[in-house]
Amino acid sequence: MENTFIPYHKALSILSAHKGDFVIEARDLEDCIGSYLAEDLIADRDFPPFDRVTMDGIAISYAAFETGQRDFTIEAIAAAGSPQKTLKDSSNCIEVMTGAIMPLGVDTVIRYEDLNVHDKQASINIDAINHKQNVHFKGLDIPKGAIIVRKGKRLSSAEINIAAAIGKARLNVRRLPSVVIFSTGDELVQVDQVPQLHQIRRSNIYGIQATLKEWGLQAQLKHLADDKAEMLQVISKALEEFDLFIFTGGVSKGKFDYLPDVLEELNIKKHFHKIQQRPGKPFWFGTNSNGKKIFALPGNPVSSFVCTYIYLRYWLQHSLGLEQRPLYVALKNDVEFKPDLIYFLEATLESLPDGSLVANAIKGNGSGDFANLVKTDGFLILPQNKSQFFANEVYPFVSYRSIW
Amino acid sequence: MENTFIPYHKALSILSAHKGDFVIEARDLEDCIGSYLAEDLIADRDFPPFDRVTMDGIAISYAAFETGQRDFTIEAIAAAGSPQKTLKDSSNCIEVMTGAIMPLGVDTVIRYEDLNVHDKQASINIDAINHKQNVHFKGLDIPKGAIIVRKGKRLSSAEINIAAAIGKARLNVRRLPSVVIFSTGDELVQVDQVPQLHQIRRSNIYGIQATLKEWGLQAQLKHLADDKAEMLQVISKALEEFDLFIFTGGVSKGKFDYLPDVLEELNIKKHFHKIQQRPGKPFWFGTNSNGKKIFALPGNPVSSFVCTYIYLRYWLQHSLGLEQRPLYVALKNDVEFKPDLIYFLEATLESLPDGSLVANAIKGNGSGDFANLVKTDGFLILPQNKSQFFANEVYPFVSYRSIW
Repeated sequence: MENTFIPYHKALSILSAHKGDFVIEARDLEDCIGSYLAEDLIADRDFPPFDRVTMDGIAISYAAFETGQRDFTIEAIAAAGSPQKTLKDSSNCIEVMTGAIMPLGVDTVIRYEDLNVHDKQASINIDAINHKQNVHFKGLDIPKGAIIVRKGKRLSSAEINIAAAIGKARLNVRRLPSVVIFSTGDELVQVDQVPQLHQIRRSNIYGIQATLKEWGLQAQLKHLADDKAEMLQVISKALEEFDLFIFTGGVSKGKFDYLPDVLEELNIKKHFHKIQQRPGKPFWFGTNSNGKKIFALPGNPVSSFVCTYIYLRYWLQHSLGLEQRPLYVALKNDVEFKPDLIYFLEATLESLPDGSLVANAIKGNGSGDFANLVKTDGFLILPQNKSQFFANEVYPFVSYRSIW
Repeated sequence: MENTFIPYHKALSILSAHKGDFVIEARDLEDCIGSYLAEDLIADRDFPPFDRVTMDGIAISYAAFETGQRDFTIEAIAAAGSPQKTLKDSSNCIEVMTGAIMPLGVDTVIRYEDLNVHDKQASINIDAINHKQNVHFKGLDIPKGAIIVRKGKRLSSAEINIAAAIGKARLNVRRLPSVVIFSTGDELVQVDQVPQLHQIRRSNIYGIQATLKEWGLQAQLKHLADDKAEMLQVISKALEEFDLFIFTGGVSKGKFDYLPDVLEELNIKKHFHKIQQRPGKPFWFGTNSNGKKIFALPGNPVSSFVCTYIYLRYWLQHSLGLEQRPLYVALKNDVEFKPDLIYFLEATLESLPDGSLVANAIKGNGSGDFANLVKTDGFLILPQNKSQFFANEVYPFVSYRSIW
């Protein structure tokens, strides 16, 4: 039996061989934060588009300053948003505002703080200035035609800002799959019900739904009773409606864990069932010929949480072609874990004043202990073939909470 | 003039003296991810609520095993979600499923992997078991009445999971202020317009709107022309409609920067204007007697970005009473910055295999260079009274991108 358990890295490689294929859709820019960009963002003009004044003050010809001239008659005002002005008399100046186009005939800006201005006269009250100072030259940041952001990136507010600047009122982004999350098991009752002693509430599916929402996916919640005929009927119908299926519970070895049988009867090909890990060992993954992806997670709260953050996230990131940036964290405490399994260990994350990150591992009371999830920030990934883990050793960390 | 510039820490302390007061509202649990919790989450029962089976297998009396008995007749099956069973004959066993209530008369669970089961007979095929193994005892994780999550926390999926488990179909959360973001300046055109040479698109407000959305705030976007009478009228009307006001541009020393005058004419008390920092020096903050908060940010893209991430975020976190967790990062490169100002320096963030975090500072071409924002992950906060910053020195970091 044990030899059908696959190692962690094998599970990841199977998932990446079954990437989702997400179509492209245009979306209003105001709705794009957190979306996954499906086009390159290209500069439609030079940035800045003209030699741009960066301080309020006056613009002069540096040659005049070099001759010793310090007093200048103000010929005109160049405001931001106005067409380009021209200096008529090269011994005069033009008053300039931040954001304005540098007038023709001037090359250097002196800020108000270094001037005395009275009526139409400006006197420079410092001894040294630099040629071409306080001007942000055309095309210096980005030349027209340059790719500013490559497709495949998750959009943060910096990218939204850039998209607006290059005239993108709508953006091509990936349409994420429609998701249904099924709870299974007759011991579960609705959240607003008072459970009897032998019952618990359907809670995991809410946690998974919230996680997916943070990743940009909308998921519906449904329930399956421990009744094989009903399961067949309900899942069969859902296969026509949704792209991505998540089940919690029903994949262990229990008498009433019909789910793997039901899925195979519905022509869903099993790619693996059970991984050499704790928690989350009974995780089941399959697909069908219509490209539906089925993640059947264990029913324990911590197990379903781990499988969501480790495997569903991995699958989503690979499907989207997102850049992977690993996070390495030093263990704060010694940890022992004897089974020859990969171990996803809950831990808090702390940034120390020396610039290091440390994880305080908190073991909790096993995979049923969801209270431990609210005390911690993520999972350390402790490797197989090792049972002693010591303080200051560094391991990868997967965070499930945005801290900073 | 310079003496009215206030230092960074003074600006923060003024902001925390003008916290927002956000009312409490109930929200459906499915809409609560990322909301700010306004009630304690309290266990409505013991977790687990009963002695819970954690492996599929059989439950026996350990005393029988101690006498040397290895073969047990299966008397009954205890499924998850069924009322508690009772073992009638203490030399028999009950087949138990994960999640089931431990039957009366048994105290130890042996998993299928350590059994041979045939018809109604189970034989234990290992030599040693532990008394009370594979049982998760009542109340071990959280006793009834315990506070599991304290109010004031931002809700991640772990808290949503817990809330569902304790029966909270709705949660009390903070209702965040209604926000309007005004762009100012006649040089600005709509995103979908093709600007003339002297014009640029209204881009900053989209970046700020996206940032606020990530923090849970909904913001409307509006524009103000450089016309004092119109500004007075439009802002006056908006003061009846919104709680929080953000302006970009119009607060420098330019001839057309009417905004500070307009705000004071509308009885908005100025608390500061200009901070000893770069970028973002001309930042203006005020309030009125109706509790409205006004953040008038500089118009340059990087400046408005910095002021949003440093000051608006600080104000929001303090208003919500959120726990502050600093992030310390080591400089990767030497940096020089001569002005006696605090310096918010754009940098990428990298996690190294030794568990340290390093920031690669990327100077860009000043506060107009928004292309630099998409290349970087956040700002290092480099202190005043210092002009040389060396590799390996550690400074606080504010991230504007979720990386891990």
